[in-house]
Amino acid sequence: MAVIEETLQANQAYASAFTKSHLPMPPGRKLAVVVCMDARIDPARALGLEEGDAHVIRNAGGRISEALRSLTISQLLLGTEEVAVIHHTDCGMLTFTDDSLRKDVRQKLHADADHIAFLPFSDVEQSVKDDLVQYRQSTIVRQDIPVRGFVYDVKTGRLTEVN
Amino acid sequence: MAVIEETLQANQAYASAFTKSHLPMPPGRKLAVVVCMDARIDPARALGLEEGDAHVIRNAGGRISEALRSLTISQLLLGTEEVAVIHHTDCGMLTFTDDSLRKDVRQKLHADADHIAFLPFSDVEQSVKDDLVQYRQSTIVRQDIPVRGFVYDVKTGRLTEVN
Repeated sequence: MAVIEETLQANQAYASAFTKSHLPMPPGRKLAVVVCMDARIDPARALGLEEGDAHVIRNAGGRISEALRSLTISQLLLGTEEVAVIHHTDCGMLTFTDDSLRKDVRQKLHADADHIAFLPFSDVEQSVKDDLVQYRQSTIVRQDIPVRGFVYDVKTGRLTEVN
Repeated sequence: MAVIEETLQANQAYASAFTKSHLPMPPGRKLAVVVCMDARIDPARALGLEEGDAHVIRNAGGRISEALRSLTISQLLLGTEEVAVIHHTDCGMLTFTDDSLRKDVRQKLHADADHIAFLPFSDVEQSVKDDLVQYRQSTIVRQDIPVRGFVYDVKTGRLTEVN
């Protein structure tokens, strides 16, 4: 069976037991989390988040530059007042360069990705620091709220703050 | 206590009981999910996903245009072979326009967001259809794999496919 079919079966069970029918749109705990799409990370479980608590923004690497649009909406329209940026050990973004992936795209998809920045990095602590700077340089997000950066260890499940 | 501090406490408990130390980087179930950042949606619980199963890409609206970079990486480097696109009822993206949010940014942050497309929409089924078209028009993602679109009902927890 295709995996999407399996997830639809799982969703039927989830919906049958669903009790959170009347949650409001704004996140109850006023938190936005930016985290990598990595399959090994479950932000809700790892951070103790329930449905309704927090916006969760995820992309390859957990890069801030691609999260700014979402953060503007999260903060200005839906009232979040803290941001956590989470990158992680053993990240796929450590395994390639723009050049190598552009070559892959050419070989496998016969397409040109030379104009695309895939945002890889070579050091996960540095990438968190870079993204905190990127946040601080943006004019379309709030600068008067806590914004903190973390590395998640996929071998231990533990977050460590990057200062 | 700041919410981020509370999540760090929750993370200590999660890490103390952590048993998934040796999951490989590529998603075990070869699935990538693109879904809105909305706080009321927990993709792992709603789709029956465990740590290690699937890439989860989230942004305001669950918009494909902002997920393509991540999907290229997911597919070409990490082997995912199915894509599910999930938008949802009562989405924040239904509540504003680019013009209204740009005005908010000017008033609240004293900044110019006139160059930014915030990607709102006025019909959630249509936005899924639009994003499936957007996927189909991209040259940097695989066109030979299943790509399916859904609306998640925040009042019932149930997914409905958009055809």
